[in-house]
Amino acid sequence: MQRCDELARCSEESDRLTRLFCSAAMAAAHRLLRQWADEAGLTCRSDSAANFFVRFEPPGCDVQRKVLLGSHLDTVVDAGRYDGTLGVALALAVVEELARQGARLPWVIEAVAFSEEEGIRYRTPFLGSRALAGSFDDGLLGLADDDGVVMAEALRRFGVDPAGMTQAAAKPGEIVAYLEPHIEQGPQLELAGQPLAVVAAIAGQTRLAVTWSGPGGHAGTVPMDGRRDALTAGCRWALAVERMGQATPGLVATVGRLQVEPNAGNCIARCVAASLDVRHADDQVRGRAVSELVELAEQIARDSQLSVQVEYHHEHAATPMDGKLSDLLAGAAKTGRATLRLVSGAGHDAGVMAAAAPTAMLFIRCRGGVSHSPREAVEHADVAAAIEALLKAVWRLAESPD
Amino acid sequence: MQRCDELARCSEESDRLTRLFCSAAMAAAHRLLRQWADEAGLTCRSDSAANFFVRFEPPGCDVQRKVLLGSHLDTVVDAGRYDGTLGVALALAVVEELARQGARLPWVIEAVAFSEEEGIRYRTPFLGSRALAGSFDDGLLGLADDDGVVMAEALRRFGVDPAGMTQAAAKPGEIVAYLEPHIEQGPQLELAGQPLAVVAAIAGQTRLAVTWSGPGGHAGTVPMDGRRDALTAGCRWALAVERMGQATPGLVATVGRLQVEPNAGNCIARCVAASLDVRHADDQVRGRAVSELVELAEQIARDSQLSVQVEYHHEHAATPMDGKLSDLLAGAAKTGRATLRLVSGAGHDAGVMAAAAPTAMLFIRCRGGVSHSPREAVEHADVAAAIEALLKAVWRLAESPD
Repeated sequence: MQRCDELARCSEESDRLTRLFCSAAMAAAHRLLRQWADEAGLTCRSDSAANFFVRFEPPGCDVQRKVLLGSHLDTVVDAGRYDGTLGVALALAVVEELARQGARLPWVIEAVAFSEEEGIRYRTPFLGSRALAGSFDDGLLGLADDDGVVMAEALRRFGVDPAGMTQAAAKPGEIVAYLEPHIEQGPQLELAGQPLAVVAAIAGQTRLAVTWSGPGGHAGTVPMDGRRDALTAGCRWALAVERMGQATPGLVATVGRLQVEPNAGNCIARCVAASLDVRHADDQVRGRAVSELVELAEQIARDSQLSVQVEYHHEHAATPMDGKLSDLLAGAAKTGRATLRLVSGAGHDAGVMAAAAPTAMLFIRCRGGVSHSPREAVEHADVAAAIEALLKAVWRLAESPD
Repeated sequence: MQRCDELARCSEESDRLTRLFCSAAMAAAHRLLRQWADEAGLTCRSDSAANFFVRFEPPGCDVQRKVLLGSHLDTVVDAGRYDGTLGVALALAVVEELARQGARLPWVIEAVAFSEEEGIRYRTPFLGSRALAGSFDDGLLGLADDDGVVMAEALRRFGVDPAGMTQAAAKPGEIVAYLEPHIEQGPQLELAGQPLAVVAAIAGQTRLAVTWSGPGGHAGTVPMDGRRDALTAGCRWALAVERMGQATPGLVATVGRLQVEPNAGNCIARCVAASLDVRHADDQVRGRAVSELVELAEQIARDSQLSVQVEYHHEHAATPMDGKLSDLLAGAAKTGRATLRLVSGAGHDAGVMAAAAPTAMLFIRCRGGVSHSPREAVEHADVAAAIEALLKAVWRLAESPD
């Protein structure tokens, strides 16, 4: 947690924490990691995607195989100090401890700090883990940030050669396991009174936008019964989205964005665009909810004599975590009561890594379920429990027959 | 209508009609009016508020008393060509026709083109009619527009001396009657199949904003039952506002603006501000509706565990038009069926003038009730009917004993 405090000072802004992909703040964070690794006698390296690795090579191990622990080191704008960063700090603590013990393990063990997960600088997430998982599309290197700096140039300025991107990918079978510790970013552990949970799956997600358009009009001169109000159409739908989420176990359904035109107090709205974000561990449940909500959006348009347009922005299937590895992690994390199994509503590097290696995730309780905010907080005891669980998991993995 | 077309070319923008207070476009419009007045042998003048007057002095009349017809010449941004301007063109046509006839009237008759009604450039409306009605607050002269030009300077650049503002006010008893022809800006004449209506009153209005604030949260990680969603709170209220309007005869109640924070698809809203615009001819009905809606906003906040703030922006009482003058105008406008009496939901110069002189308003049917849009349209026959009604009204007024 002290290391998270120190890393929080590696920021692009003096008064709040913002650490984007390949920024000077990220370079400063890498210098800190390198310093800590040096102090522990561990070796470090960066790959072509600016991921940073701290390595412990147990004597006599198979150097072609490794167990990877970690998370991402980039943040959102005005971030908290634990989202991603705590996972990196925990991974480093575990690797240091194993090195300190001179642990005899059958494989290399590495802490990874992924360079990019939040999708802020280039508006596309998971750049770091995609490179390692071999799912990085080289076309992304041509994307420009808000200042017009293309990604390839940003990587070069950061001191890595994007031409080596293909070599950044792990070889098949190279990664024995990827374990990602991460704050929950939700309130369920707090509500259950437990410090740790294992993630069963990363929820599938649909993001779309519905836009209703009509004639608008003057708020003073158009009588109520002659109105075709796009704003109340959008409101009707937002409440239906909420009801759908409440009525469907495990579903979260959110309208988080309402864009109103002309958005003036004395004008009946002529155009309202509403976002929809639906997530569930079961893709069929999510699919049914989305179809019903789209139908309802069209019904509302007919009822209010408005035109309607639906624009699909993004969709991904649910990603189950590796069953055996998750059971092993749950066993290692058990403290009296059985370890809670949660579905992660948020996306994570683990969702990308799952396609390349057996992957499991450990959630750590965070105060109020708050994330993406300077108010992020964790308890000392929970962090200690996470270190213990991860160490135990690595040992059990080393002892496991497959 | 041809003159409205010509005046529409007096615009600050080449591709659409925008003619703000004291702009070069307004000066061009005044030159056109002057040219038409010259052709008709009528005299013109501007006052210190940049109002423009075209005057016919019937031989032998009392030059201390006048009947005023007109409306405003300024427009909104991307305006139609009839809102305000049609009233000015109609007034000019009536004064020209009376001069052509060499009408023997007991008083002077003037067409007025008010300089400002829409409240765009200085965000405060009715500047022109307030000057004439004697309700112009000299403090307004210090207001700055978006370019930092204060109103006094804008008036000087326009060629009038704002120091004469007090002299711009009409003397008590000077204005025998103010008649304002204006497009309806609503659909009621079209629905009733009638060309003209007389305005019974200008509705009273309350404008306020309600803001709900809560913790926000991540759309993927906060379960539905742990949410305190400011957006759905705002939606619940907007629908209640609509229901209140529908259930209360004569009431219009509108939420036209919703400001959402952070307004991102993957975030539960932490703050939503909703505007409210309520209008009714009866101030008590409006007052009751507003109190109920404010109470409801607070109830919704309690239900959703959100904080709530109500900010009152603007309130004005209903302004009844002069009863005798309105009856006279309604008689003059009668074509077979009795002239419709409407409540004006929109504000008008007539609302300001009513405090200074007997005032009545004539509404002209407009297509689809559309205004503040380039799609504004009127029928030739309706405009002809309006000229006839106004001429008849002036003659009847001249013959009336008081």
